[in-house]
Amino acid sequence: MEKWTTLESEYLIRRPWLTARRDKLMMPNGHIHPEYYVLEYPTWVNVIAIDRQGRFIMVEQYRHGLDDIFTELVAGVAEDGEEPLAAARRELEEETGYTGGQWELNTVISANPGSQNNLSYCFIARDVEPNGRRHLDETEDLSVKLLERSEVLGLLTSDTMKQALMTASLWKFFYNEEKNRPTV
Amino acid sequence: MEKWTTLESEYLIRRPWLTARRDKLMMPNGHIHPEYYVLEYPTWVNVIAIDRQGRFIMVEQYRHGLDDIFTELVAGVAEDGEEPLAAARRELEEETGYTGGQWELNTVISANPGSQNNLSYCFIARDVEPNGRRHLDETEDLSVKLLERSEVLGLLTSDTMKQALMTASLWKFFYNEEKNRPTV
Repeated sequence: MEKWTTLESEYLIRRPWLTARRDKLMMPNGHIHPEYYVLEYPTWVNVIAIDRQGRFIMVEQYRHGLDDIFTELVAGVAEDGEEPLAAARRELEEETGYTGGQWELNTVISANPGSQNNLSYCFIARDVEPNGRRHLDETEDLSVKLLERSEVLGLLTSDTMKQALMTASLWKFFYNEEKNRPTV
Repeated sequence: MEKWTTLESEYLIRRPWLTARRDKLMMPNGHIHPEYYVLEYPTWVNVIAIDRQGRFIMVEQYRHGLDDIFTELVAGVAEDGEEPLAAARRELEEETGYTGGQWELNTVISANPGSQNNLSYCFIARDVEPNGRRHLDETEDLSVKLLERSEVLGLLTSDTMKQALMTASLWKFFYNEEKNRPTV
């Protein structure tokens, strides 16, 4: 299996929330793809944040693509030069007012390796605590929800939570919990 | 939590592989998002296909967004009027030549509910069999790989497989296996 060759590349649109590129590609067999679209995005982050009582710190918000309201993990975009971990800590504090805790990287995945050029860093933060400094700006519209483990599993099992970058990280988290549970 | 209101909507591009829309949205607090981008796609499908020997039927292919070669689940796009299950069966046969088996829906998720309007139907197909009628067209470039369960888990654990719509479905599959394994 070989990589394909980019023959030409041009930007269709470069806006803060959408950068789209059209590439002309040649496959190893010589076939030409005259228009292959790539969406360029910065690094994305999300976090499975859990407090000392074992509650998951989630956010409810409107998602316009599916035109519905979802309960999701805290997520966001890394700023220029910002490390993924710093971005995830910042997003958690901004959106929920929770800070601190023990952080680890859970998985690094892509919403679509065919059409997107960025990666999503998915963290786990245990024993986070509220510090009361939540600061949304007027372009954000979300409410914080504390969910029990069984409620989060219910959102996953019922396909109520749909964001694959979040469900992938959560299913991996719960898989590892199950795998490590003591047998009788 | 309320939905946002679409005030205006216009298409930037409508091509077979990229349809992008710019909406002007009003939040419940009255704030206006002058340019909110939505990518419109048809229904997507993928399948965890397993033969009678317990081997996972996977495909290796180049993914231009990340400019790298990945081992992935069979996946594709539902055609106009095609049911997701029929699309997944067709894609499995076209890409690998495997057919038959017992099929079930594993999860229905979204690559990004904020910016995409479509859903991905993720199936499990057990006891699939090769029928020798693989038929790729010249725009496709992939090789079939049969992987053991431990190899698939290795691709997931190491973040070698990165496509979130696939890793979410696979982690759910392995979670349910772990959950249902008999305790000693």
